[in-house]
Amino acid sequence: MDMAYVLNTFFAIFSMTLIILMVPGFAMLEAGLVRTKNVTTVLTVNVMIYSVASMAFLLIGYQVAFGGFDFQSNMSKWAFFLFQMAFVGKVVNIMSGGVSERSKIFPLAIFTFIVASFIYPIAVNITWGLNFLKGTALDISGMHDLAGSTVIHSTGGWALLSAILIMGARKGRYKNNKLKIIPPSNIPLVTLGGFLLWIGWFGFNGGSVGSIASKESADAVALTIMNTNTAGLAGAISAWAITFFRYRKYDITMILNGALGGLVAITAGADLFNIYIPILIGAIGGALVVLFVPFFDKIKLDDPVGALSVHLVNGIWGTIAVAIFSDKFSFLAQIKGIFVIGIFVFISSYVVIYVINKIFNLRATDDEQLEGLDTVECGIEAYPEFRQTI
Amino acid sequence: MDMAYVLNTFFAIFSMTLIILMVPGFAMLEAGLVRTKNVTTVLTVNVMIYSVASMAFLLIGYQVAFGGFDFQSNMSKWAFFLFQMAFVGKVVNIMSGGVSERSKIFPLAIFTFIVASFIYPIAVNITWGLNFLKGTALDISGMHDLAGSTVIHSTGGWALLSAILIMGARKGRYKNNKLKIIPPSNIPLVTLGGFLLWIGWFGFNGGSVGSIASKESADAVALTIMNTNTAGLAGAISAWAITFFRYRKYDITMILNGALGGLVAITAGADLFNIYIPILIGAIGGALVVLFVPFFDKIKLDDPVGALSVHLVNGIWGTIAVAIFSDKFSFLAQIKGIFVIGIFVFISSYVVIYVINKIFNLRATDDEQLEGLDTVECGIEAYPEFRQTI
Amino acid sequence: MDMAYVLNTFFAIFSMTLIILMVPGFAMLEAGLVRTKNVTTVLTVNVMIYSVASMAFLLIGYQVAFGGFDFQSNMSKWAFFLFQMAFVGKVVNIMSGGVSERSKIFPLAIFTFIVASFIYPIAVNITWGLNFLKGTALDISGMHDLAGSTVIHSTGGWALLSAILIMGARKGRYKNNKLKIIPPSNIPLVTLGGFLLWIGWFGFNGGSVGSIASKESADAVALTIMNTNTAGLAGAISAWAITFFRYRKYDITMILNGALGGLVAITAGADLFNIYIPILIGAIGGALVVLFVPFFDKIKLDDPVGALSVHLVNGIWGTIAVAIFSDKFSFLAQIKGIFVIGIFVFISSYVVIYVINKIFNLRATDDEQLEGLDTVECGIEAYPEFRQTI
Repeated sequence: MDMAYVLNTFFAIFSMTLIILMVPGFAMLEAGLVRTKNVTTVLTVNVMIYSVASMAFLLIGYQVAFGGFDFQSNMSKWAFFLFQMAFVGKVVNIMSGGVSERSKIFPLAIFTFIVASFIYPIAVNITWGLNFLKGTALDISGMHDLAGSTVIHSTGGWALLSAILIMGARKGRYKNNKLKIIPPSNIPLVTLGGFLLWIGWFGFNGGSVGSIASKESADAVALTIMNTNTAGLAGAISAWAITFFRYRKYDITMILNGALGGLVAITAGADLFNIYIPILIGAIGGALVVLFVPFFDKIKLDDPVGALSVHLVNGIWGTIAVAIFSDKFSFLAQIKGIFVIGIFVFISSYVVIYVINKIFNLRATDDEQLEGLDTVECGIEAYPEFRQTI
Repeated sequence: MDMAYVLNTFFAIFSMTLIILMVPGFAMLEAGLVRTKNVTTVLTVNVMIYSVASMAFLLIGYQVAFGGFDFQSNMSKWAFFLFQMAFVGKVVNIMSGGVSERSKIFPLAIFTFIVASFIYPIAVNITWGLNFLKGTALDISGMHDLAGSTVIHSTGGWALLSAILIMGARKGRYKNNKLKIIPPSNIPLVTLGGFLLWIGWFGFNGGSVGSIASKESADAVALTIMNTNTAGLAGAISAWAITFFRYRKYDITMILNGALGGLVAITAGADLFNIYIPILIGAIGGALVVLFVPFFDKIKLDDPVGALSVHLVNGIWGTIAVAIFSDKFSFLAQIKGIFVIGIFVFISSYVVIYVINKIFNLRATDDEQLEGLDTVECGIEAYPEFRQTI
Repeated sequence: MDMAYVLNTFFAIFSMTLIILMVPGFAMLEAGLVRTKNVTTVLTVNVMIYSVASMAFLLIGYQVAFGGFDFQSNMSKWAFFLFQMAFVGKVVNIMSGGVSERSKIFPLAIFTFIVASFIYPIAVNITWGLNFLKGTALDISGMHDLAGSTVIHSTGGWALLSAILIMGARKGRYKNNKLKIIPPSNIPLVTLGGFLLWIGWFGFNGGSVGSIASKESADAVALTIMNTNTAGLAGAISAWAITFFRYRKYDITMILNGALGGLVAITAGADLFNIYIPILIGAIGGALVVLFVPFFDKIKLDDPVGALSVHLVNGIWGTIAVAIFSDKFSFLAQIKGIFVIGIFVFISSYVVIYVINKIFNLRATDDEQLEGLDTVECGIEAYPEFRQTI
């Protein structure tokens, strides 16, 4: 029916627009979290990722994931593409954020191209797309992952883990086995970025329901957005409470990361639960962030923005939570999905990043890191007129 | 009919999303208006308010206002909840903004919980909700208040007034009876915040029409948004003209507050007027801001962001303007509404804040204010790498 | 049919909202590109432009362009107005941005009023509106210009060119025939602004299709948004590649301007092409920006934000591209449109700006420029607590 087609198209465009708001969202969050001397580089990387990833997905990745524009959908095929395209850069953002302050732009661009053309599209192919594994022993189509706790967030997280293992920590971060605290340079930007991501999530999860054009679909979309938001609230509150009881201070970066952790955790099953379950899922998500951020520092996995805790840990948690809180999906199916995607993404990213790092030096040298990447890579300071303390 | 249900649900989600953009809007506005040493605290408070207020409304307040999820609506009940939930934090934002630079986070969180669970929901109950006063002498359902000049803005304003009366001015603000000028620390953030609020208002007022699914409703929604915007334009222009003629300078914070004043003033009746009346209502709104900001300083009500003038004065003005410019609603009904809500909110807030301040010290000590709340409360500076003049 | 009316109204409101996001978009972009001492002034100008231009369009300009609210449309007449009103400030933004750091606020406000009341509405009248030239030799209704490569972007660009010719360069910019490099003061704001503009463009071009309420229209809207985005991606990538090969550095301001150049270039024909043509149009758009920015400096047309290259050059390029890549429209019709609009806007703007500059001194004096306009015009510093290097 025409009206359904029109409504679904319009709703996909609306959702896509919210997701694209996450592009400045990630950019502001990361620009606020890194030191002043690396801000321009981080921003340049964010612009690069959106451009290169989206273009690669248009030219190659979309074909890999869905076999091209004839993939069946209940809306305009161009709107379906736009919605899918809006996701792809996020995967790379998760990885690039976690290796901030020590990675160079051009090698990152090559990695972006490969992720958006092949690695992420293959993950989509076997979950939401054509599914070339259908009927094989590795078929994971039984996993429920509404908007990508596994397909997006864990994928980005595994890529990041492999990158950190290859590249090592920032120069001086774990000197003499002591953690050097590096405070974020601009808290308003962190806050703005956090909220833009939060709002973008409404489009991410709401749009993933796939249709709004019937009473049932409209209810499903609204419930999904409500549950998404609730998990974000719960993640913020639980991170807030835990950090306060531990440190007697309010740590806004932890609170915002807690909210994001809750949002990642609800992403797999936001359409499944009654309105109270997301409080639990999100609160655990926020708690996981608070627990894992110091844990990753303990094992010297240096991640300036907390992306491993937010996206990898909570991507896994959210996918398992589907089996815990909904009896429609089995633990086996969910865990199999986590493993198949995880092993594929981790190994392929590891190989690709290893090769890129060998050939193009993904890791900036110690001197370059000391000087700051903005002068080395961009020749443009972020705030050239503000006197700095360091 | 199904299509109406779908369209109203979609439109409520769209409107809700715009209102949530006001969350970073308030955060950026306030972070720009306060001094650098209090910026992180203000941002933390904004994140706290959205999280605590929304969660309290989900768990308690919504039940108080509407009796739960069976409240009749022409859309998905989850979308109706989301739209209503988007409002609640705003009430506390109005209050918290006006006591910036001297209030502590934890006591504010308790107040937030009480406002979002009881005080605001009771105000909604007797206007847009179940109306437990129906048929009594205090029944104010005859008041027309489309999107909350009284229910939202005055409510926040009365709560703020009681807070200022209890907490007093910032240390040093009126030393030796002379007003100490405290300039805003970051004008781009003020501007960004002002515009995000303005855009959010389209969802606030447009969504409050309640339906878009017929020719008449669609016209009403579009006219409401148009009138909303027009009043904002007129408020900005009138504040601009008055400040210029008085001081021969362009004061962007006053111009933006003038726009917000116009927007508050049109909120009660944006659906009622022809397209020229909002020019008058908004222009008077902007003028009131310019007049009342120095007035409140004269009587030593210290309000760093001008919230009393923007939200309380213009909330009252906008509610009365309905009776002046529309013959469908009486002065009596409008003024009765203002009084019933005003007395209830002022007294209940006063009692609650008084008790909270006694037990938990809502007001930061003079030393804490001097040092700045960011180090005291958060241990995180907003811009640790920028050298400061003060 | 009612549902079509409702859907088109809703979609116009959605599109309008995205376009209004370009208001903070322009404000942040320009505030980031100018020096700290002129940031408050630039922001004040942006608030002024939105207020004065929109109000003038409501009171006068809309009548000039469309003959008032009875203009035929397939949606609520108020929504049609809102969508058209959202465009008008952009024309002045293009001009004001290019004469930043040397123009005074009050004379700019007079120019804003005249552009929004007469100059831009006349350009709209003869293209998308009543067309008082219909049937005459100057009739340019044969030109295809979907969302204003010519009507919006060239119009703003021609006005800017006349302003630069009259006002001259910033003091010290071309001292002793050497170009003085003036770095942008705040790169995060530039990035945020660039992305808000990009997102706003989806509403600009998508909304200009005019209807979404049938399968064909929904496809057209989605394809238009997809092509719009693709041209932005291509513009960013081509600017990135060219600047890198030339200077061995990544220049984020050039990359973002390249994206904007691609977006301007696709604006005339985003609805016409298959999904690969916009890659070419956008890539050329980005290249033109990289080539023309130094060119305009060579001929001493001082344009601090690159608006001539982004809007004028690419406005022309995009309008011609329609004839190159679509056989439905002739070179003659496209070029005639460019000329008629260009000559009208350039001459009328030149006369108006010349007179305004004579009477009110649009150009700030050398001393005022040295001191910075923020103290001279506003008495408000953008970042009063940050110590500055200059």
